[in-house]
Amino acid sequence: MKAIAFRGVHDVRVESIADPRIVEPTDAVVRITTSAVCGSDLHQYHGRVPGIEPGAILGHEFMGVVEEVGREVRAVSKGDRVVAPFSISCGRCEWCRRGLPTQCSTTGRAVFGGRFGKQYPGAQAERIRVPFADFMCEKISSDMSDEQALFLGDILSTGYACAENGGIRPGDSVAVFGCGPVGLLALQSAHLFGPARIFAVDRVDYRLKLAEELGATPVNLDKGDPVEQLRRVTGGSGPDVALEAVGHEVPFAQAIQAVRAGGTVSSVGVYVEQSIGFPAREAFFKDLTLKMGICNARNYIVPLMPLVQVGKLQPARIITHTLPLGDAPRGYKIFDQKEDRAIKVLLKP
Amino acid sequence: MKAIAFRGVHDVRVESIADPRIVEPTDAVVRITTSAVCGSDLHQYHGRVPGIEPGAILGHEFMGVVEEVGREVRAVSKGDRVVAPFSISCGRCEWCRRGLPTQCSTTGRAVFGGRFGKQYPGAQAERIRVPFADFMCEKISSDMSDEQALFLGDILSTGYACAENGGIRPGDSVAVFGCGPVGLLALQSAHLFGPARIFAVDRVDYRLKLAEELGATPVNLDKGDPVEQLRRVTGGSGPDVALEAVGHEVPFAQAIQAVRAGGTVSSVGVYVEQSIGFPAREAFFKDLTLKMGICNARNYIVPLMPLVQVGKLQPARIITHTLPLGDAPRGYKIFDQKEDRAIKVLLKP
Amino acid sequence: MKAIAFRGVHDVRVESIADPRIVEPTDAVVRITTSAVCGSDLHQYHGRVPGIEPGAILGHEFMGVVEEVGREVRAVSKGDRVVAPFSISCGRCEWCRRGLPTQCSTTGRAVFGGRFGKQYPGAQAERIRVPFADFMCEKISSDMSDEQALFLGDILSTGYACAENGGIRPGDSVAVFGCGPVGLLALQSAHLFGPARIFAVDRVDYRLKLAEELGATPVNLDKGDPVEQLRRVTGGSGPDVALEAVGHEVPFAQAIQAVRAGGTVSSVGVYVEQSIGFPAREAFFKDLTLKMGICNARNYIVPLMPLVQVGKLQPARIITHTLPLGDAPRGYKIFDQKEDRAIKVLLKP
Amino acid sequence: MKAIAFRGVHDVRVESIADPRIVEPTDAVVRITTSAVCGSDLHQYHGRVPGIEPGAILGHEFMGVVEEVGREVRAVSKGDRVVAPFSISCGRCEWCRRGLPTQCSTTGRAVFGGRFGKQYPGAQAERIRVPFADFMCEKISSDMSDEQALFLGDILSTGYACAENGGIRPGDSVAVFGCGPVGLLALQSAHLFGPARIFAVDRVDYRLKLAEELGATPVNLDKGDPVEQLRRVTGGSGPDVALEAVGHEVPFAQAIQAVRAGGTVSSVGVYVEQSIGFPAREAFFKDLTLKMGICNARNYIVPLMPLVQVGKLQPARIITHTLPLGDAPRGYKIFDQKEDRAIKVLLKP
Repeated sequence: MKAIAFRGVHDVRVESIADPRIVEPTDAVVRITTSAVCGSDLHQYHGRVPGIEPGAILGHEFMGVVEEVGREVRAVSKGDRVVAPFSISCGRCEWCRRGLPTQCSTTGRAVFGGRFGKQYPGAQAERIRVPFADFMCEKISSDMSDEQALFLGDILSTGYACAENGGIRPGDSVAVFGCGPVGLLALQSAHLFGPARIFAVDRVDYRLKLAEELGATPVNLDKGDPVEQLRRVTGGSGPDVALEAVGHEVPFAQAIQAVRAGGTVSSVGVYVEQSIGFPAREAFFKDLTLKMGICNARNYIVPLMPLVQVGKLQPARIITHTLPLGDAPRGYKIFDQKEDRAIKVLLKP
Repeated sequence: MKAIAFRGVHDVRVESIADPRIVEPTDAVVRITTSAVCGSDLHQYHGRVPGIEPGAILGHEFMGVVEEVGREVRAVSKGDRVVAPFSISCGRCEWCRRGLPTQCSTTGRAVFGGRFGKQYPGAQAERIRVPFADFMCEKISSDMSDEQALFLGDILSTGYACAENGGIRPGDSVAVFGCGPVGLLALQSAHLFGPARIFAVDRVDYRLKLAEELGATPVNLDKGDPVEQLRRVTGGSGPDVALEAVGHEVPFAQAIQAVRAGGTVSSVGVYVEQSIGFPAREAFFKDLTLKMGICNARNYIVPLMPLVQVGKLQPARIITHTLPLGDAPRGYKIFDQKEDRAIKVLLKP
Repeated sequence: MKAIAFRGVHDVRVESIADPRIVEPTDAVVRITTSAVCGSDLHQYHGRVPGIEPGAILGHEFMGVVEEVGREVRAVSKGDRVVAPFSISCGRCEWCRRGLPTQCSTTGRAVFGGRFGKQYPGAQAERIRVPFADFMCEKISSDMSDEQALFLGDILSTGYACAENGGIRPGDSVAVFGCGPVGLLALQSAHLFGPARIFAVDRVDYRLKLAEELGATPVNLDKGDPVEQLRRVTGGSGPDVALEAVGHEVPFAQAIQAVRAGGTVSSVGVYVEQSIGFPAREAFFKDLTLKMGICNARNYIVPLMPLVQVGKLQPARIITHTLPLGDAPRGYKIFDQKEDRAIKVLLKP
Repeated sequence: MKAIAFRGVHDVRVESIADPRIVEPTDAVVRITTSAVCGSDLHQYHGRVPGIEPGAILGHEFMGVVEEVGREVRAVSKGDRVVAPFSISCGRCEWCRRGLPTQCSTTGRAVFGGRFGKQYPGAQAERIRVPFADFMCEKISSDMSDEQALFLGDILSTGYACAENGGIRPGDSVAVFGCGPVGLLALQSAHLFGPARIFAVDRVDYRLKLAEELGATPVNLDKGDPVEQLRRVTGGSGPDVALEAVGHEVPFAQAIQAVRAGGTVSSVGVYVEQSIGFPAREAFFKDLTLKMGICNARNYIVPLMPLVQVGKLQPARIITHTLPLGDAPRGYKIFDQKEDRAIKVLLKP
């Protein structure tokens, strides 16, 4: 089958590899109908993630149709349309039982593709082996399109978790740092907690414009210090909650400086740096709560589904490009360079 | 000045009484610009509340302009437009400090007017003495109309607290029992917690119609058992949360029966009966949470204000009648009899 | 093998039945080393539970050693010492995934033995078939005795959940209604939440004495109205939290009347009555939270284990009788009649 | 009267200054019976805090007897024994009403003494003016000694808040970084949340010894990397919660590295550095919660009082030295140099 392989910095290629097959009796093989390129794929594309080997199949956002299941799989069967989370979890170990499947000790905190691609080839492909299918696969009802369901397995759950971790209460003001795919879905999700106002911080015009259409007031980084801008629009105190969806030192510090005393900074940025500067004295005197974290997406797939179905979450609004799988190399480039007003790029085998 | 006095069952009258004046150095006198008739006023109107004496001035929902303040009042001053909660609290006793001002030991859990009317004459009047003005009065900005601000002191806060106590989470289904003024504001408030669906239970057509306009699916009591209807529309399990805004045994039991296992029933109905039947065995096996309670409205006035200002709460939508204060007797009748599609009746001195 | 069968009101007998065997590939057969008689077994013994058939094997509190497992069982294997919860759950259905395994739709909310005894014979026996063994069985380390581990599957988890649902905060005062096995374990568990004082309400002297040894101040029902007694010892306000471990109308109402305004009543009594009286008006004006509910014991087995291991929970202190399995009829009688200062009766095959 | 003045780095002196008097009608003057030297006083003593002027009176931990009150003070009167929080708050501004009195906008986030000493002279003195006495002063019952009550105004509340912010649940393992006065009181407080085990990290033998007497397992920094030591004693995963009571980059990073995935780091160290290094990538992949913050001590005085009264908190156990006020210079030196096994130094006028 066709799949997208990492071959070096800024070099991903369409290659032919063997079809996946059932290895364990708890496996499923899923024929992928839609996958996507994730911001964290770009970290690998940029060569900033150690441990990835040439030839590794990329991608961890996907959905599709079950083609075959192992003999112990009961929850799904051939023909079911399913989505699965980006991280691979057994559902049975101590960490999975605690509700932290991203920490699964059975799989060693594995994620589909990329640096785990040798053992668990990625989802930018025509088919994928999904281990622990009973735990991993969630059926999708026919009234949901691929575009609505796909992001449940990663960025919609991540954006939602970011908003939820912010502890937003009705009437709060919320600042979203970063209007990439995750930031925009965090923004959509923030509305579910009843804030009076949402501010969206970025410098890319077309992304700020979509943020505005999604109900936020834009704060353009090119128009001055975002901390000062946010204080000005919140009567001096700063927003109650900051959602940080970038993953760099600068927006992280800005979020801490902007938020009001007693507020919360929730960060879902995937930090590549081991250590960054942290304004500890300000965080102390402002009595802050910080939530950092990789999203346990499995936990969110079921609860978020009705919100997508009734249209309170509209994840498909961030999709700007849908390309054939074979165009993935171009998809990476468009997404990386923000060409053609790109926000989110889907791949269709 | 003119004020509305209780004279007996179904008998309220416009009477002339002495103007209020500053008694304690912490008092304010407020010239009332708008007051309202509350569902709990009807309990008194029906003679179902012991302890009320003929001549008691009624009313506890009001707002207005400060006319005079005692010498220790600092938070408000003459000319300020203010709203105050229905219950009278010192802000300093053990209960007030715990965040339960309705339990104030200084005032003996007093409420304006009605059965406390001798000591604290009510707000269906031209003026009112507000004790502990620093704690009780909240300034209203000029961009809010009386109709937007008035309900912060009672039914909007009560409706909101009902929704908040329900512990609604994004994606939940919610059933509101009772589409009177409090139920409709509970419904509006429920939206702030991101439910996928809201159901509104009542039998009065025009009230169900407004509930529908406010985003709920109507469940008409005349079309069959609401428990069965609610199960049918929730895939058999029942809603996650029931908000009970009636205050009778029947809807309370229906709420318990309807809600899903592990769900929550939040009740703000003012129970006149000392004791009602309670389906204990079902509540036990369904692992329910019940929240009962009078609303500590003072706690909600400030947090809810921005939600009214941005239009996420639109309390004025339930107002059906605005009468001169002198027409209060007619206002009670209209409200009580649900004449002329009445939902909420305001009184303007 | 030998097992204890229900034969009628106050009539349980030792009978010989066929040994259990693996039926489903997810089953385990456990050789029971210790089981117990539960308060809810007495409801059946008294003939107050409809649906139980003569010959049904009783008992749902047990632990033992795995003798055989089905071919899909991975988490436990032959020779493992295990405990399991009283309710039977698949671990995979919607309810189990929500964290409410007592509501399992696969098993129809089944419990071992008694009225479910036809399909799921009980644990007062030499052996038992445990369905869904991967989900149900938890391994017990060798440093824990049977007496320490056994109650994790039911009454220790139930008592703990009762305390946890009470929302006790450090410094609170807590009243425990009922000093039977569950009440005494709720009392032990309450200490884990840092209350300043615990009061224990009962009328049985030797049970109040043990409550006192466990750190509570006894409130003897024979010395007057417990509501008044509790108010007296709490400066008039009543305890912050009431834990109700009886399951009758009287202590339930007393708990509501005793607790302070804004407090919580957590009830784990198994109500036999469909409906009981409920002091709604008092609950409303006191702004109460009520938690009712059957315990999802599976959720508590792992978290409570370290507390038993370090001795912060000492469940074995309530054991008063350890009888051979063949003496179960006498065990029922002793427990039912509170003979010989009985609190908790174990049965050893 | 006599008071302790800052005169330069490592230079504090006993000086004679004018007695305080009532300035505002909401003031009280308190005759101090006991004060203390706080770890944050040492930051000033070391010259690490900008803005302090020579002659500033030091100290913010105190209790005493009310000598005189302004005409609007009602909650306390002459002769009352009282304690007050270290930070000065009006009780009425937006921040105080939100429950964040340390952020009081009326006083500009002031603290008694030190760099605020010009406007609000400190408490290492014979008398002190306490603004907003109704909000600030809490009466102490006669069954509590000064030594039991004093720390409610600062370090006991701070230690408790640190533990509470950690979100400790029964059965958790907890690591306390730093066995100074605040760390030891955080340790005592942690017990109130029911952990199975507490570990205390420090390198000072006599402090580790007291930690052990208070129920913790010592982790000596001189015996190797505390992260490795903590992993070893927690089966490899690390403690559930880390309480950081030092306020430096190294223990902060160690706390983050040590704590288990999904855990919480609660820090009450007063950071002198504006920015410190932060292991962002680890915090992200471990899904951490961080709580930073100055303690709103006023909120804790009343709730913690019963715990001190029943002996569940024993703050006096950390007192090692009680000196006459005139010996304050020696007290600073002893405390700073950890001479004579010093932990906490009291000053008696």
